[in-house]
Amino acid sequence: MLLGSVEAGGTKFVCAVGNEDYQIQDKVQFPTTTPEETLQKTVDYFKKFPELKAISIASFGPIEIRKNAPKYGFITDTPKPHWSNVDFLGRLKQDFDLPIVWTTDVNGSAYGEYVMSVLFNERINSLTYYTIGTGVGAGTVIDGNFVGELGHPEMGHVRLKRHPDDLNFDGICPYHGDCLEGLVAGPTFEARTGKKGATVPLSDHVWDIMAYYIAQAALQTTLAIRPAKIVFGGGVMSEPFLDKVRAQFRDLMNGYLDVGDLKAYLTMPLVENNGSATVGNFALAFNELNN
Amino acid sequence: MLLGSVEAGGTKFVCAVGNEDYQIQDKVQFPTTTPEETLQKTVDYFKKFPELKAISIASFGPIEIRKNAPKYGFITDTPKPHWSNVDFLGRLKQDFDLPIVWTTDVNGSAYGEYVMSVLFNERINSLTYYTIGTGVGAGTVIDGNFVGELGHPEMGHVRLKRHPDDLNFDGICPYHGDCLEGLVAGPTFEARTGKKGATVPLSDHVWDIMAYYIAQAALQTTLAIRPAKIVFGGGVMSEPFLDKVRAQFRDLMNGYLDVGDLKAYLTMPLVENNGSATVGNFALAFNELNN
Ligand SMILES: Nc1ncnc2c1ncn2[C@@H]1O[C@H](COP(=O)(O)OP(=O)(O)O)[C@@H](O)[C@H]1O
Ligand SMILES: Nc1ncnc2c1ncn2[C@@H]1O[C@H](COP(=O)(O)OP(=O)(O)O)[C@@H](O)[C@H]1O
Ligand SMILES: [Zn+2]
Ligand SMILES: [Zn+2]
Repeated sequence: MLLGSVEAGGTKFVCAVGNEDYQIQDKVQFPTTTPEETLQKTVDYFKKFPELKAISIASFGPIEIRKNAPKYGFITDTPKPHWSNVDFLGRLKQDFDLPIVWTTDVNGSAYGEYVMSVLFNERINSLTYYTIGTGVGAGTVIDGNFVGELGHPEMGHVRLKRHPDDLNFDGICPYHGDCLEGLVAGPTFEARTGKKGATVPLSDHVWDIMAYYIAQAALQTTLAIRPAKIVFGGGVMSEPFLDKVRAQFRDLMNGYLDVGDLKAYLTMPLVENNGSATVGNFALAFNELNN
Repeated sequence: MLLGSVEAGGTKFVCAVGNEDYQIQDKVQFPTTTPEETLQKTVDYFKKFPELKAISIASFGPIEIRKNAPKYGFITDTPKPHWSNVDFLGRLKQDFDLPIVWTTDVNGSAYGEYVMSVLFNERINSLTYYTIGTGVGAGTVIDGNFVGELGHPEMGHVRLKRHPDDLNFDGICPYHGDCLEGLVAGPTFEARTGKKGATVPLSDHVWDIMAYYIAQAALQTTLAIRPAKIVFGGGVMSEPFLDKVRAQFRDLMNGYLDVGDLKAYLTMPLVENNGSATVGNFALAFNELNN
């Protein structure tokens, strides 16, 4: 059976087809330009696979995910030029008379990690996935469903206790300044140090500051949702850095709650190279077909 | 049909019996002393009602709510003297061969507000209930189920961006100092001003500081869970104070997400006099019977 996956990012689109074992059969990627051009390329790609049975789209946002909303399937108020108020799902439905799932990029990734965890015999019913990349966002799956009634989560924009050595940094979120995204998104390295994050050694104190904030995000999620695990993806994350986050998380929790082994609780994605959303899309497309 | 409700608080127990229309038929309250004495009084009270069909307990915590855990039904590691490691549910099961629901005080309240909202024809599928009282906690219902796989939420212990006029206050949480509970629980009034909260006029700037923090809690919940509404109970809350919280919430959100009319989104309980948990218990007991 052939299933389609669209990972729609702000800088690039990844389209893939795969099977119900979540194996990729074919994959293509192209830069995110205008909606017309980019969605046309997406349509053209899937047209090559007439056996396609269902598609799932994991998109950058904010997007409208409430099925009964007039703008269901739209990208709504994005700061990204040209992409506000774009009927993404509608464009695909024009050309494909198939079940099409519509969710956020991080929800797609959360779902991918959730199904992979279950495949790997972890007995979990809930999971939160954070991306710490160009932006910061998260999605949560509980009992196979995404969390969010009024819309999708936007955990990137919470406020945090500021690190004492970081009080002079105003943060870079255009809406909030020093929200989580404004303090730990990839481009904060340039803003704080003038250097790209990839070139800043882990021994630099800026990484401790980053870890302090990301640990607070993990703490919030733990205290609000009590998921079975929290997965961290995105360009900023690495296993050695995540160890710093775990240490700060332990300090912040201060013995209040037991979440088990922190190495298992706060983890890098099971799917490598930020491929969680593709797996999630295949699983979501497959489920949609069987509902 | 007769249903039993136990609201087990750190200072007092409220036991009640009522019907499937959530109407109280009889009610009693007594101070929380030793577990032996207090649970015996609870048992003695319900023994007077042989027609009782089911009981629901909404307890202070932390408690073990994972049904497959060895200590399911226990109060676990509470700082409250004598009450750590107490088999609350087991004690009631000794005397009552009935379905007994076991959850947290705030989950009980969340459920009560959830069923009342639905009764009042609000079309909601999710709700978070905060208590701002002697302590701070919250519970969330989504599609009729409580959120929390590893245990119940403990939203009182998140960290927050400190108010610039409050930087010298260390907070009163014995675990974390300036977590949400450490900054806004009722006894913080005594700690900050030397006066009881009830005697501090709303024009005092301390209320603005309180509103700033509670608005951040509402923001976190909004961004993490996107519930249909957030309800605030507990001795510290009042409608005029909640208006201050709404104003700060609007500022913090800064137009990023639309949650509709803030008066409907951030609200006082529908059930008056902190009675939400009793209604929730009746509803939970009734559901348990019909499952
Ligand atoms: N090793 C690294 N350390 C810190 N930041 C990094 C590293 N590698 C990439 N980044 C940053 O991560 C961001 C890109 O995140 P990524 O998840 O790859 O893409 P996107 O979020 O755009 O989908 C950029 O801001 C980049 O500078
Ligand atoms: N009007 C008020 N303004 C501020 N704080 C108040 C007010 N009334 C009561 N409180 C405080 O609320 C706390 C009690 O909260 P409550 O919800 O009634 O009980 P509990 O949390 O113990 O079940 C106490 O710290 C009390 O001082
Ligand atoms: Zn922001
Ligand atoms: Zn605390």
